[in-house]
Amino acid sequence: MNMSDTGLQKHVLDRVCLAKEASRFLAGISTQDKNEALQRMAQALWDNRQQILDANRVDIEDAEKSGDPASRIDRLLLDTQRVEAMMKGLYQIMELPDPIGETLETAVLQNELRVEKRRVPLGVIAMIYESRPNVTVDAVGLTLKTGNAVVLRGGKESLRSNQALVDALQLGLRKSRVPVDSIQFVNRVDREAVDILIQARGLVDLAIPRGGAGLIGRVIQGACVPVIETGVGNCHIYVDADADLAKALSIILNAKTQRPSVCNAAETLLVHEAVADEWLPVAISNLLQHDVEIRGCPQTEALARQSGAPNRLVRAASEEDWATEFLAPILAIKVVKSADEAIRHITHYGTQHSEAIVTENVAVAEDFLSRVDAAVVYHNASTRFTDGFEFGFGAEIGISTQKLHARGPMGLRELTSYQYVVRGNGQVRQ
Amino acid sequence: MNMSDTGLQKHVLDRVCLAKEASRFLAGISTQDKNEALQRMAQALWDNRQQILDANRVDIEDAEKSGDPASRIDRLLLDTQRVEAMMKGLYQIMELPDPIGETLETAVLQNELRVEKRRVPLGVIAMIYESRPNVTVDAVGLTLKTGNAVVLRGGKESLRSNQALVDALQLGLRKSRVPVDSIQFVNRVDREAVDILIQARGLVDLAIPRGGAGLIGRVIQGACVPVIETGVGNCHIYVDADADLAKALSIILNAKTQRPSVCNAAETLLVHEAVADEWLPVAISNLLQHDVEIRGCPQTEALARQSGAPNRLVRAASEEDWATEFLAPILAIKVVKSADEAIRHITHYGTQHSEAIVTENVAVAEDFLSRVDAAVVYHNASTRFTDGFEFGFGAEIGISTQKLHARGPMGLRELTSYQYVVRGNGQVRQ
Repeated sequence: MNMSDTGLQKHVLDRVCLAKEASRFLAGISTQDKNEALQRMAQALWDNRQQILDANRVDIEDAEKSGDPASRIDRLLLDTQRVEAMMKGLYQIMELPDPIGETLETAVLQNELRVEKRRVPLGVIAMIYESRPNVTVDAVGLTLKTGNAVVLRGGKESLRSNQALVDALQLGLRKSRVPVDSIQFVNRVDREAVDILIQARGLVDLAIPRGGAGLIGRVIQGACVPVIETGVGNCHIYVDADADLAKALSIILNAKTQRPSVCNAAETLLVHEAVADEWLPVAISNLLQHDVEIRGCPQTEALARQSGAPNRLVRAASEEDWATEFLAPILAIKVVKSADEAIRHITHYGTQHSEAIVTENVAVAEDFLSRVDAAVVYHNASTRFTDGFEFGFGAEIGISTQKLHARGPMGLRELTSYQYVVRGNGQVRQ
Repeated sequence: MNMSDTGLQKHVLDRVCLAKEASRFLAGISTQDKNEALQRMAQALWDNRQQILDANRVDIEDAEKSGDPASRIDRLLLDTQRVEAMMKGLYQIMELPDPIGETLETAVLQNELRVEKRRVPLGVIAMIYESRPNVTVDAVGLTLKTGNAVVLRGGKESLRSNQALVDALQLGLRKSRVPVDSIQFVNRVDREAVDILIQARGLVDLAIPRGGAGLIGRVIQGACVPVIETGVGNCHIYVDADADLAKALSIILNAKTQRPSVCNAAETLLVHEAVADEWLPVAISNLLQHDVEIRGCPQTEALARQSGAPNRLVRAASEEDWATEFLAPILAIKVVKSADEAIRHITHYGTQHSEAIVTENVAVAEDFLSRVDAAVVYHNASTRFTDGFEFGFGAEIGISTQKLHARGPMGLRELTSYQYVVRGNGQVRQ
């Protein structure tokens, strides 16, 4: 390791160690003190909004010089309204009940040992993310409310914005009883900083990657600390032979077009052959009105062309299309012979995120719901509801697509662990 | 990759894929069918005990030839009684309630979506373990009861015993409705087989290493599938100024001597200076009667020598001793100035497994219980109770020392995940 590597290692590990130290203090802090800290941080964001917007302008100018696409620049952009939204987010987290200290279970064993299972913080959470600066504020609010310290490592494109946000949040913390070291920011853009963070076994209790498949894959491959895999959603809507076709139409339009760039948007539509000839042309012409590109199986492609779809919006689906999370107004469509074929297609190509069936046949629906292996399975509803706020958690730090610890939308409780507290009067084991 | 690597990769991945396929079927199987399978497997173990003992004899002979220590050979040894114990273990798992399908929570959202949080299997669990062949049977029983498929990778020293056990269990499964592919056995001893298993992202839902620190570290460093870290226990007993000294004596004797080779045995005794002169000589002479070697701080060492301890059983503790899980009749002892110093010592050297305080002072006890970061914290009881059976889980697949997903003893529930099932009538997101 050369000198600069050593310097980087020290920079990152110093931050992790400070977070660990702060986390020991945070675990015992009262709800009132945590809420006061949230309030102080919200106020500090607002008071320092000019510095934040100035820093953001430099990030935006750099992104424009690099020729970043408009969608990416929009994700990066902050304005007064967005700073206000971040501030309000912290106030919302303040209002949520504090999960820490909750007694989850109690038992008195035969030997009279009293066992209490108590909810406690995880400790130190490393957030590794890209692009949107609001993740910085969300992550700080959610981890602090749950008594965790956080080490933030945002994308290099938002480095100055994130630094300004962290500066403001730390100014707020200084006016509270929560240690300022509870928020640590890795301000080095080297990719190796991520590697050091996710190798810090015994110091980082959880790493959460949020961003594209590349970032997530890199964290999962390189980590030796526990990780929660988030986000990739190749979601399907299956329209059954017994579907209410009006419901099916509004569900696929919502799931595909309401916000195509998010992980709970639909990417593939599967249609039972019994309703394909009647319904697909209607569905396709509605999708085309929203400028959705169709990548279809042969039957779909033929139906689309008969509907008079322009060439630029229709093509044959490739094998790769079935496996792709487009995050764009593109929809793969396949006609299937049965619900069973739909389930097998989803099993093969899905990412265990959100999957829906549209049918009035309850038996078929229940079979789908019990056999499809995804974080959230839907009967007659849009996949777009997979979201911590929609689920009533009042917050969301990400959507887990793994099965260990948390699955689907993650709110406050998913940022906690538990501990057994055992009280005795001298018991020893026989 | 050379030809033999390719062959190994195929061997391991074929087994993982078969397990994945079986897991899809297993997730929907009834409790009755799973219990029948457990019963058939138990019977098959008994019916095939001669083949199992014959295979074990070959493993034992090899171990003896290699000059393995007696303790290791004892762990490896099977006899009729131990086979009977394994059989009874399966019957016990049969009697336990089936956690799968349980509704954990329900909610009706404002838009009338009905959300059910339902307990489901994890999918495919990879067990990577050493030495004791009974882990093979325990792991199969617990994973099958929870609707998971299992891929077993035992140690090379027990290869033939494990193969014979798996053969018998699969014979049992063939007489049941559970697919025989639910149990997969990696019978290649190459260390690379473990690497392939823990890199099988998307196929293995959880890897559980059970064994020495070397095995566990290797799995954690190399895995890109979710892992639960188990087992290393550098456990402390802190005897406070306000301790009931009779309780303290029976607790340290139990925690150190009842079974020194297990992870919940005590490795370090911390004693408040206010009671050290009075109590430590008594404690030390009792420990010496059990042939426990003392590695002490200067004050402890002096007191031990004054108690007439033989030289072979007393020495000064090194820095390394405070951090060592001896798993043997050796105890590190340190006199501390305060409960706070004890907590700081535990924070520095502990492994977040099991930690105990002995005191009649409730305030000091509660402070200890809330500040010590370990899976199980005890007041006036032996650390030896950290165990799935003692906790009333009716089973145990290991003891987690991480905070993600499961902490402390892991029973059936800790081998499950959950899924959100959402039922609507055409809802779309606004």
